[in-house]
Order: sequence, then C-alpha cells, then structure tokens
Amino acid sequence: MATIRDVARLANVSMATVSNALNSSDRVSPELLARVRAAVEKLSYAPHAGARSLRKRSSGLLGLVVGDITNPFFSDLFEAVEDAAAANGYLVLLCNSSERSEREEAHLRMLRTQRIDGLILAPTGAASMHRAALLAQLEVPIVLVDRAMDGLGYDAVVLDNRKAGFEATSHLIARGHRRIGLINGPEIVRTAADRMHGYREALLSAGLPFDPALVRDAGFQERPAHDAFGELMALVEPPTAIFATNNLMTIGVVTALADRGLSCPEDISLVGIDDLPWADAVLPRLTAIAQPVRAMGETALTLLAERIAGTRLGPGTTTVLAPRLVVRRSCGSPVPLKAAHV
Amino acid sequence: MATIRDVARLANVSMATVSNALNSSDRVSPELLARVRAAVEKLSYAPHAGARSLRKRSSGLLGLVVGDITNPFFSDLFEAVEDAAAANGYLVLLCNSSERSEREEAHLRMLRTQRIDGLILAPTGAASMHRAALLAQLEVPIVLVDRAMDGLGYDAVVLDNRKAGFEATSHLIARGHRRIGLINGPEIVRTAADRMHGYREALLSAGLPFDPALVRDAGFQERPAHDAFGELMALVEPPTAIFATNNLMTIGVVTALADRGLSCPEDISLVGIDDLPWADAVLPRLTAIAQPVRAMGETALTLLAERIAGTRLGPGTTTVLAPRLVVRRSCGSPVPLKAAHV
Repeated sequence: MATIRDVARLANVSMATVSNALNSSDRVSPELLARVRAAVEKLSYAPHAGARSLRKRSSGLLGLVVGDITNPFFSDLFEAVEDAAAANGYLVLLCNSSERSEREEAHLRMLRTQRIDGLILAPTGAASMHRAALLAQLEVPIVLVDRAMDGLGYDAVVLDNRKAGFEATSHLIARGHRRIGLINGPEIVRTAADRMHGYREALLSAGLPFDPALVRDAGFQERPAHDAFGELMALVEPPTAIFATNNLMTIGVVTALADRGLSCPEDISLVGIDDLPWADAVLPRLTAIAQPVRAMGETALTLLAERIAGTRLGPGTTTVLAPRLVVRRSCGSPVPLKAAHV
Repeated sequence: MATIRDVARLANVSMATVSNALNSSDRVSPELLARVRAAVEKLSYAPHAGARSLRKRSSGLLGLVVGDITNPFFSDLFEAVEDAAAANGYLVLLCNSSERSEREEAHLRMLRTQRIDGLILAPTGAASMHRAALLAQLEVPIVLVDRAMDGLGYDAVVLDNRKAGFEATSHLIARGHRRIGLINGPEIVRTAADRMHGYREALLSAGLPFDPALVRDAGFQERPAHDAFGELMALVEPPTAIFATNNLMTIGVVTALADRGLSCPEDISLVGIDDLPWADAVLPRLTAIAQPVRAMGETALTLLAERIAGTRLGPGTTTVLAPRLVVRRSCGSPVPLKAAHV
C-alpha cells in the first residue's frame, strides 16, 4: 500500500508538503496542490487512520455498546447512530454486551486501545464502580442511551419509561382490567425499574392494589417471558391482561397464548413496549408503546459530536423522549378466564 | 492518558524494555518484567492500537459490511461474527449499506483508512468493476457471506439458495398447489437469483409451467411485498400459495392477508425463508426455510482469521450450507379463492 513517502517522491515534493496539502490545502500553492493530488490519485494513496490518530489525537472511530443486537430496538438504534455518524465522517465500532457485564467490560477495554473519539453506551446490569472506572479511563466524551446511570455526569438520551409504563397500564385499566400481569426486565436495569414505577403509579391512580405476585422478571428475553406467562396463569386468581415491557417478551407471550389456545383479546388482553413490523402482522394486531428509536440515536450522536468538537460544555444532561401509545386490537374488556375455559 | 514513556520513567527502564516486556515477555528478566507490569498497572496504561497498527501492520479491527442491519438475518449474523471475533481478540467495525451501492463504497473507503486486518462482506447490488477495485485496494483478506460474487477469487460462505427455493416450492406443490406466487428480491442480488432458480426447478420437476406473471420483485422489503401480494391477488387467475424469499417480505404478506381478512392456510398458503422468533408467534405458525446463520458467521470468521494468520493459502473456495425446512401450519391444500370469498 502506498505511503506518504511514495506520494512525496512521485510529486517531487517534501513529505511535509504532502501532509500540508492533505490537511490544510490553503497553506500550499495551487501548483503544488495539483501535483500532490495527482500523485495521491495515481498511487491510490489513503491516509493511515492509526497515524492520524497518533498525530491528531483523533481516530475517526466511535464506539457503540448495546445490550442485545438481536433485539430490533438496538439494531434500529445502530442504524440511526451509523447514519448520523457517517454524515459526520465517523465509523462505528459496534459491540454487543449480550446483557453480560463482563462482556461489556471486555469491550470497553478493547475500545480503549482503539482510541475511539467518543462512546455511546446502553449500559447493562447494575451500576458498578468497576465500569465507572473503565469509562473514566477512556478519557473521551460519553453519551448514555436508552438506559441512564445516575451520578456520573454523562449526557443521556432515554425514553420516558415511567410514562410508558403508566400509559400502557392505564390503557388496560380503562378497559376494565383490575388484575394486570407485568412481565418485566430485571429491576437493576434502569428501564425496567422505571417501567415498573409507571405500572405502580397507574394502579395507584386508579385506586387498585399492587400485587407483587402479578410481577415477573423475564430478563427482557422471549423464552422466560413465555414461561412467566404460564406462572401467572397458574395463579389462583390469574390476570385478565398482560403488560410485557419489551418486544422480545411480547413475542414470548404471543407464543404462549397460541400454545394454550387462548384468543386475544377475547380471553386475555396484551399490551407491549416497542412497536415493530410484526406487531402489525400478528393476529390480533398488537397495541403497543412505540419508542422514538431514530430520534434517540440521532440525538445521542449529535450530543456526542458536540462534546468531541468542544462546542458543548458543562455537566451532562438527560434528554427524555416521549412514548407513543399505538392502539390496535389486542386489548379488550376482561373475561373471567375460568368461565371461558373450563 | 499515560504513554509508554511514562511507564518507562516510573519503572526506571528504557522504552525498548517496556516494549519488549509488553510484546515478548521472554526477552525480559522476571525482575524487570515485574517492575514494568507494576508501572503499567499503576498508570492504567493501555497500548495505542494506532501505534501498534503502524508497527505491526495489524489494527485489531475487522470490517463487517451487511445489506440491512434491521433485517434480523443480518443482526444474528453480526452476533455470530462478533462472538467469534472477540474470541480471536478482534473488534468489529459494522457498516450497513442499506442495500445501496454508493453507501457500501463509501464504507469501503473509510474501512481502508482504518487499516482493517480483514473484511467480511455481504455485497449489495450488481457486480461492479468499481467495487472490485475498492476491495482490491484494501489489500487485506476478504470473505464474502450470504452473497457470493463470481470471478474475484474470495472465500465465500452462503446458503444453498437453489435448494432453499426448491424445497419451499416443492413443499407447496406436494400439497396440491399449481399456481404459486413468488415474492422475491431483485435478481441482481445473487441470493434472489438462486432462490428463483430453485423455484423454477421445482416447477419443472413437477411438470408445471413457469408463469412470469406470478413473480414479483419486492426488493427484500416489507411494504413492497405487501403491495406485491395485492397485485398477485388481482390477477385473473390468482395464486393459491405464496413463497416469500426473506423474513421482511413474509411479514409484508402476513400483514396483507390480515388486511384482506384472508385466513392462512384456509384461504391461501404461505412459506417463507428465514425462521425467526415471530414465525412461531404469528397465527398460523409459519412454515419456513431456516438458515444456519450462526454457522455462516462462525465459518466466515474462521476462514478470515486463517487468511490473516497465513495458515490458509490458495484461491478462495465457496462453502455452501444446507437450508432446513421447518414445517408448521401455514401451508394447506389449495382452495379456489373465488368460491371461498365471493
């Protein structure tokens, strides 16, 4: 591969002139500039990003660490971040933590050796001093997305998760449901904790009791949600409606309904968080809370680019985006299950 | 951030000794090694990958360029590639071409400046001399995945797409269908062309005519597939079954069925390629051709790592993986649509 030395030789100029021509063309005469450009073209010379990184302290790389890339929420987020990054001349190193803290930590250490210019992180698991130290060691701007972490001073872009939980639950209560099963992620993940708060607030507003037996942690995953649904239906007083707090768990519940020959909304109602193509393809079409994923990714990238450029200063702030309830056909009025299915 | 110079100063050794201690510890006495390691620990020193890239001609970065990251096939592929890459000490630069050649080209140019050690590519669009030149300029090992390109000599890992097309179509023929609509991707994409070949071979084997009116290019996308279904149903002699050649187009057809109040398989049968969680969640559960996505990603990474290490030599070969038909409930016997729905 051609080096800057080869370009200088072919153009018959110094390496410093080539560097000036490539980096600040106004410092080079038009005649020299033309010679350098012709040599670059002829040799198919491309600057070495590693060398540029040593010289300019900029690698042109951004890190994006997500909880689970097979969750469509995160692949949509990647798409939005990458679009905005490309417009700013950055490439994105995507790292998937698979919701495991030790994998996230290993990724953060590798991202550090690549001298990324900035990081967008959807942290997994509980707050930890260890991760806080790893993030500080990166010594680059960091923007949290989807999941905030308190006390670290980073910018964050999140859904109003309490509102999402409140609206989904209130929608079911308005249709007459009194026993609503909550299939949630682990409460150490901030999104899960906030969605649970919204659920409790909606019950409280309606004067309904909170029954911990109706709440299950299914780890934001499909199969555990399927099983959690079975546990809820085995209660002496089973729920008449289910609120599943992400798309994978909603699939798990839809599958569990089919397994048991239950009809929705005739036998049981269902509302989920995340509005995806198949939400409108399954029968019945699913009522769901839509997240503004694209706006989340674009906002995070804009904040990060401003921090890197130094045009955004001061302590980090949290941008909270509103959820949107999309009403389709999966929520009806409650039916006593036993009467319907004995 | 601490430099190698800081480490040398604290350990009271030369920079060459630090470098030796970090890169080939057997060349340094145990006593010096301990001093260097203590200094590295104390200063939280991390090697600079850009500097290592200049020195060793290895960046520790692999590129992965996919057609559409919001297609679950590709996000599953990323997960498999990243798992295998991490086990080999590599980070993955993921680039999404959004099925646009000019975006793919821009990504290839940026990957070149990052001096990636190798590339896994699912090429988009038609073969082009321009892309061939960009790939050659990377001067690194390249493995094609999902979509092969003839004549460039790269290793490739693909599904047996003819067999996938043949099996899906034969499954419908065995149930009595004679007019089978094919909702396919663009034929300039190799996977689409091969799936179409399989479809035609199955018709030929069964002595059935090939009717071009039953074939639609829906660009591997959901909404065009929804519309293509409408066009097929508007034919004087509409199909009694549909074969959709990827997951997004299958969703489009499922939605179109629901829009028209058609029942599957009572009114019309449906088989798709790609077996995803929601295939088992929709009603009826979808019969589908499953792709061995994880094996594809792992095989591609293994081939690439062997090329980078120099343990694999000679011209590239194509690894063809077998599809698997998963029979569920979306394919029944044909019913004359007009009789059923006038």
